Amino acid sequence: MTGQLIGVGTGPGDPELLTFKAARALAAADVVAYFAGQENSSKARATAAVYLKPDTVELPLLYPARTDVNKSIPGYDEIITGFFDACARAVEAHLSAGRTVVVLSEGDPLFYGSYMHIHVRLAPRYRAKVIPGITAMSGCWSELGLPLVQGNDVLTVLPGTLPEKELRRRLGDSEACVIMKVGRNLGKVREALQQVGRLDEAIYIERGTMENMAAVRLCEKLDGDAPYFSLVLVPGWKGRP
Amino acid sequence: MTGQLIGVGTGPGDPELLTFKAARALAAADVVAYFAGQENSSKARATAAVYLKPDTVELPLLYPARTDVNKSIPGYDEIITGFFDACARAVEAHLSAGRTVVVLSEGDPLFYGSYMHIHVRLAPRYRAKVIPGITAMSGCWSELGLPLVQGNDVLTVLPGTLPEKELRRRLGDSEACVIMKVGRNLGKVREALQQVGRLDEAIYIERGTMENMAAVRLCEKLDGDAPYFSLVLVPGWKGRP
Repeated sequence: MTGQLIGVGTGPGDPELLTFKAARALAAADVVAYFAGQENSSKARATAAVYLKPDTVELPLLYPARTDVNKSIPGYDEIITGFFDACARAVEAHLSAGRTVVVLSEGDPLFYGSYMHIHVRLAPRYRAKVIPGITAMSGCWSELGLPLVQGNDVLTVLPGTLPEKELRRRLGDSEACVIMKVGRNLGKVREALQQVGRLDEAIYIERGTMENMAAVRLCEKLDGDAPYFSLVLVPGWKGRP
Repeated sequence: MTGQLIGVGTGPGDPELLTFKAARALAAADVVAYFAGQENSSKARATAAVYLKPDTVELPLLYPARTDVNKSIPGYDEIITGFFDACARAVEAHLSAGRTVVVLSEGDPLFYGSYMHIHVRLAPRYRAKVIPGITAMSGCWSELGLPLVQGNDVLTVLPGTLPEKELRRRLGDSEACVIMKVGRNLGKVREALQQVGRLDEAIYIERGTMENMAAVRLCEKLDGDAPYFSLVLVPGWKGRP
């Protein structure tokens, strides 16, 4: 009798924004795994902390040095593929022993989440389920009370890592846009929004839904510093009845 | 001392997919308002039922006859604007009396939710906050264990009400797409996906996360019947490491 794999979304960072379903899965888990940087810090783990039972086995999955910040190092693809293979084997060892393994994911597991790498490797061979989480973008627009899309609006979600020309083309082509992974791409994102005449509409947010969340109109943000997980929202719904 | 307006997302339909924050707001509400069709049925109300205290005052906001199904009736814009104005006044009467009013919203309140019409009318003058919910699309891809977007993928969310040419252009231009409000637009959506060579990738879902949820590859769905709230998912993440 093998165990069950459960991908659990921990939401944007406020522990109150976990679902009941997620909390029940955490309380029943034999093992809780989570991706973390070299310093073993995991926002998902911190968010989920209050829901874990004391004797849960923890399985940190530590990204290889530098891969979490730099995808242009030589041999990146092989290193990261080998890493995800090793993570899947570590999870699998517990599943084979009949244990229930929860893999935590910030936000929503199947929406840009690292959990996906475990899921595609193990779901074909083990019982697996996924419990959704509130996405970072949803946590941000809710905290700001910012109506995002309504009626026939189109929403485009864009990684800030895209080339500027591509960002510009897409930012000018949808009523509402969310730009993820802003970080070092902040200057490029700002320039693309300026070019399509939408810089005035854009809101910049970091540490969304955390106690130290900061939000400002992007045109009023004068420095170029942005953490990797910062977001830009360009709301739609112009013709309000 | 006036009351507080709280928009609460009830998620895709499974009561276990409410957040702790949403449940706490429901348990503390003096009044719970919800939009409903003429027959006074509200999915958000049904999902939230177990979290309401027995003496909560309920305020159903009943859509004018036929407007919930037909936007092409003569004078639609005036009728619906007048309706939202009246809803806001009904909520405001409670706020003025110092009561906390929760307005329920299926999915996430600021993501195509009717709550937005109340929010923009009252948030400038009353204390207001919004508690996010799991979106229908996220509930669906999670239930199916369907990886949606990863890395540099672009996601486009499209209402099925768009013209076919516009659907076709956008479906061919993003790694992942979600088509909302499929309903009577099913034939058009199918044709657009076929034209851009992506019909084989598309998954059709109705009653997402409910006990009677149904999901099928769109190319294998032979009839043309689809409820208004059905969805089509076209997953991204082709180059998996």
